[in-house]
Amino acid sequence: MPAQRADARRNYARILAVAEEEVAAHGADASLEQIARTAGVGSATVRRHFPSRRALLEAVFHERIEALCALAADLTGVADSRAALLDWLRALTGYATSARGLATALTLDGADGPDAAHVNACSVKLTDAGDPLLRRASLDGAVTPGVTLADLLTLIAGIALATEHHADPAAEADRLLGLTMEGVSRGGGK
Amino acid sequence: MPAQRADARRNYARILAVAEEEVAAHGADASLEQIARTAGVGSATVRRHFPSRRALLEAVFHERIEALCALAADLTGVADSRAALLDWLRALTGYATSARGLATALTLDGADGPDAAHVNACSVKLTDAGDPLLRRASLDGAVTPGVTLADLLTLIAGIALATEHHADPAAEADRLLGLTMEGVSRGGGK
Repeated sequence: MPAQRADARRNYARILAVAEEEVAAHGADASLEQIARTAGVGSATVRRHFPSRRALLEAVFHERIEALCALAADLTGVADSRAALLDWLRALTGYATSARGLATALTLDGADGPDAAHVNACSVKLTDAGDPLLRRASLDGAVTPGVTLADLLTLIAGIALATEHHADPAAEADRLLGLTMEGVSRGGGK
Repeated sequence: MPAQRADARRNYARILAVAEEEVAAHGADASLEQIARTAGVGSATVRRHFPSRRALLEAVFHERIEALCALAADLTGVADSRAALLDWLRALTGYATSARGLATALTLDGADGPDAAHVNACSVKLTDAGDPLLRRASLDGAVTPGVTLADLLTLIAGIALATEHHADPAAEADRLLGLTMEGVSRGGGK
């Protein structure tokens, strides 16, 4: 029955969109009941599409990782390679700050355990997506020699983790990313 | 009985010294039994001096915080204000990396709950100790305008948290602190 399948697809997309907002606002602790209410569907419908909280979170993370990869691809077309890299890192920081699960996941890169495969997959995707931006900025002399994308992912994960309890985590994380990019110290080795 | 009191003092100092090493190696999960064995005392002796794991950890943190404050005071006498600040931040990063409890504690600065008072006390002490170093370096133009000691504590806590699962956390944290101080990007706004 095509009509039912179209309904199911719309429900899926609506639940996922609401879930993204809830995860952005509340991190991995987002309430499944609240997601169902805001999406205007029953809890049973949520459970039919996403049998577990983990399945829902993975779908949300997958969507966001894909969006960050698409943004990286768009930004390789921007003439100013330094600005392109900064824009992408800023978007990544914004997401890492809002979705605490990702920040934790990034620090667990390479960890063993049941989550390792999923976590590594995210990290590999982001590394593959961001590497061309970093390489281009490096060739233009806009990046300190020796900096790797792994360094940048670790610094961003740290900023997201350390600002978690701040009054305005997103604003503070963005400020600290700016400091990290421009450097805290002046003179000396420069 | 003075001899017994001297024994007790020696035991206390030995247990604390061993505990510092164990916490540096294993973070807040350090084994009390291992500490007793290495210190060459019985578990009962450890418990007499430190009735709980928490009491022991607090004593260790207290010792390290005091040492970092003393180092800051020493470094105010160093002529190169930029190098003095960097040396102190490097020591703080080394400690935050080895003692995971501190890194977590620093991110919880201002948090409510039973640990808030203790955590805030540590943070206030470190801020008071490091502020003269930051102020002196700022006056010499060696620090990006607007950087606060709270920014530096947050960045260091983040680096410590994000490198926790790295193969060599201390080396990686030191490298990332260097990057943060010198800046990831070159050109542009500089």
